[in-house]
Amino acid sequence: MKAEIICTGAELLSGKTINTNAAYLSKELSAIGIEVAYHTVVGDNEKELYESIDTCTKRADILIITGGLGATYDDLTKETAARYFKREMIFDKISYDNIVSYFEYTKREISENNKKQAYIPEGSIALKNERGTAPGIILKEKDKTVILLPGPPYEMQHMFLKYVKKYLVDLSGNVIISKDINFFGISEAALEYRLRSLMISSKNPVIAPYAKKGEVVIRVSARAENKEKAEEILNPVTEKICKEFSDYIYATDALNLESVLVEKLTQANKKVAVAESCTGGLVSKRITDISGASKVFECEICSYSDRIKESILGVKRETLEKYTAVSKETAAEMAIGIKRLTGADIAVSVTGVAGPGDLSVDKPYGLVYIGIKSEKYSDVLELKLGGNDKSDRELIRNLAASYAINACLRAI
Amino acid sequence: MKAEIICTGAELLSGKTINTNAAYLSKELSAIGIEVAYHTVVGDNEKELYESIDTCTKRADILIITGGLGATYDDLTKETAARYFKREMIFDKISYDNIVSYFEYTKREISENNKKQAYIPEGSIALKNERGTAPGIILKEKDKTVILLPGPPYEMQHMFLKYVKKYLVDLSGNVIISKDINFFGISEAALEYRLRSLMISSKNPVIAPYAKKGEVVIRVSARAENKEKAEEILNPVTEKICKEFSDYIYATDALNLESVLVEKLTQANKKVAVAESCTGGLVSKRITDISGASKVFECEICSYSDRIKESILGVKRETLEKYTAVSKETAAEMAIGIKRLTGADIAVSVTGVAGPGDLSVDKPYGLVYIGIKSEKYSDVLELKLGGNDKSDRELIRNLAASYAINACLRAI
Repeated sequence: MKAEIICTGAELLSGKTINTNAAYLSKELSAIGIEVAYHTVVGDNEKELYESIDTCTKRADILIITGGLGATYDDLTKETAARYFKREMIFDKISYDNIVSYFEYTKREISENNKKQAYIPEGSIALKNERGTAPGIILKEKDKTVILLPGPPYEMQHMFLKYVKKYLVDLSGNVIISKDINFFGISEAALEYRLRSLMISSKNPVIAPYAKKGEVVIRVSARAENKEKAEEILNPVTEKICKEFSDYIYATDALNLESVLVEKLTQANKKVAVAESCTGGLVSKRITDISGASKVFECEICSYSDRIKESILGVKRETLEKYTAVSKETAAEMAIGIKRLTGADIAVSVTGVAGPGDLSVDKPYGLVYIGIKSEKYSDVLELKLGGNDKSDRELIRNLAASYAINACLRAI
Repeated sequence: MKAEIICTGAELLSGKTINTNAAYLSKELSAIGIEVAYHTVVGDNEKELYESIDTCTKRADILIITGGLGATYDDLTKETAARYFKREMIFDKISYDNIVSYFEYTKREISENNKKQAYIPEGSIALKNERGTAPGIILKEKDKTVILLPGPPYEMQHMFLKYVKKYLVDLSGNVIISKDINFFGISEAALEYRLRSLMISSKNPVIAPYAKKGEVVIRVSARAENKEKAEEILNPVTEKICKEFSDYIYATDALNLESVLVEKLTQANKKVAVAESCTGGLVSKRITDISGASKVFECEICSYSDRIKESILGVKRETLEKYTAVSKETAAEMAIGIKRLTGADIAVSVTGVAGPGDLSVDKPYGLVYIGIKSEKYSDVLELKLGGNDKSDRELIRNLAASYAINACLRAI
């Protein structure tokens, strides 16, 4: 089956909003075996939208349109689709009740305009919007399926996952299951290079990489007529990948490194403390991004100068003078210092050169040391980060923080 | 003049890459008075690209196509455009020399494929690519202008700003100037509400908001036949906005709050220290994002538990017991503590409840206290952050960090 996506909205054409809806839907559709041939963005203009619907439905089996379902005069997606498919707009009592209860729940006044949102094209299915007021629409016309979704990603994604995905999977008579494999310590490019032939040749399961902040996730999605058969298709492939890349896989179906760290520390009833320099608080920020981190994390100290490394963390002046702040020796003493100061079970330190303007140390950009200290274990890692682009401070800091969190994971 | 944008590439249709090029170009085009009517995304498919060029050039005066200028077999934008406009592909010696010198500069081997990149449609202008190998192309055909740009944003944006923008401005016989106004403490929605009629009515200068991480930037862009006249158009509007919103404007043409803080501290030869709790290192992370922060920033301590607030920052046990960790009193003592510990000129503290899982304090999500302490000045701000969505930890933490940085700015 072939699909096309139309996203409507003046804010997309003015560039004020980046079109994330098209990418989101494309990824989800490809995971359930539906190929996307075109994306189109049109403004809030009835004639242009009508012509786009005409062009796209002639080429594709499935057309998804996002945006233009709001309550104001320039929201005209539903009306234009109804006119194209020659359907009357009819009042849908269930949608109206949903809108009323949404307004009650958010303690806001309902306006006369919102009643417009309860009209749907005759013969279509209304989809409940649990995160807003505009219902979605599924409209079948012979062998074509047209799906209208709200524009805000927060509403659209929820509605897609809750109703549309299943509808499209059922349309193909299949079920879909998927597994995320979480990698660290291998670049997306290197991973893709090694998985390339498998990724291209395997149409079911679909194998797709998702890169995020220095880690890579591979999502494997299988479709079959029932769950058991889908698992038979999925499992051998995920097992093969997990076996081949075991050195780089830290979890499956995880959010990220820091969520796994907080989970593992909670299970082990252990606490971690952090001494940072070049990452400037980023390791701490990422650990405390995780709700519930307060059970396993008490303290982080960012010492951006030699003076503070010495006075608060107790790094020896000789060490700083002899080896500088960016050294194996300083990293080790920073980890020891923060452990002593806080009494944490696991202490991690980061010191390095993230980029121009950092310290007055004559060391190359991207050189980073990670110190790790626990009851039974101590180590220092030397990293050379940043690849070809040593001027990318943000990349180097993010990677350094990820390596520090990964080091804690390994120390548990 | 009306423009359309076509972005090519399988990675866009699979959703692997979010299409930021269309938004970037739309914003830039709208600032120079060119309206964008459609975005289209097509795969690496010659027939579909040919048909899209046909559709778009019939509707628009200017067509910009990004992507498909690479060295491999599936890069076919140039060839397809040449075929559509019935031009021969000819070898361009200057482009070839540029490619050769780029390879020499990056110390890589040039391949036979790269020679393909030096062919351009007859009668077109080649644009030098300073960040990659594929030259851009400007092709005039009667009253239509077709511009081909590389797909990677890093290459595309540089080429657009360096060559294309000026070309398009010249095409309209104008010069363009612009000014960014940096706001803090007012939401994008509230600002837009107050500026709405001005934003809609003013076609020159164009007034467009850019939201980022809890702050808002308004870019005002004016066009005229020369720089002086453009300034005459720009200045009264920017002055009017600056006057009306003076309480919320912290700078013009600035990157963000933290960059202005680092700049102002450097000028004043002062140092800042940070004591964080609910922001978990984010204030420190954001200050040290700025290259050169090491001159004005030495130390941050994140104390995520009462125990550490007491033992390291010296917050009194009675204060924590009587008022809890999330209180005016604790914020004040944290600021005093970090100032004493580090000897910084300005000390700022943040304590609050960012969301579920935070501390065991019975206070509402979004309640945050910012303590500020300098030689002559001390204060505590009480904030209620997060608006309708109190469950958004990331939003609350980002806003709290922004308020803390803004408080330092005001204290200088």
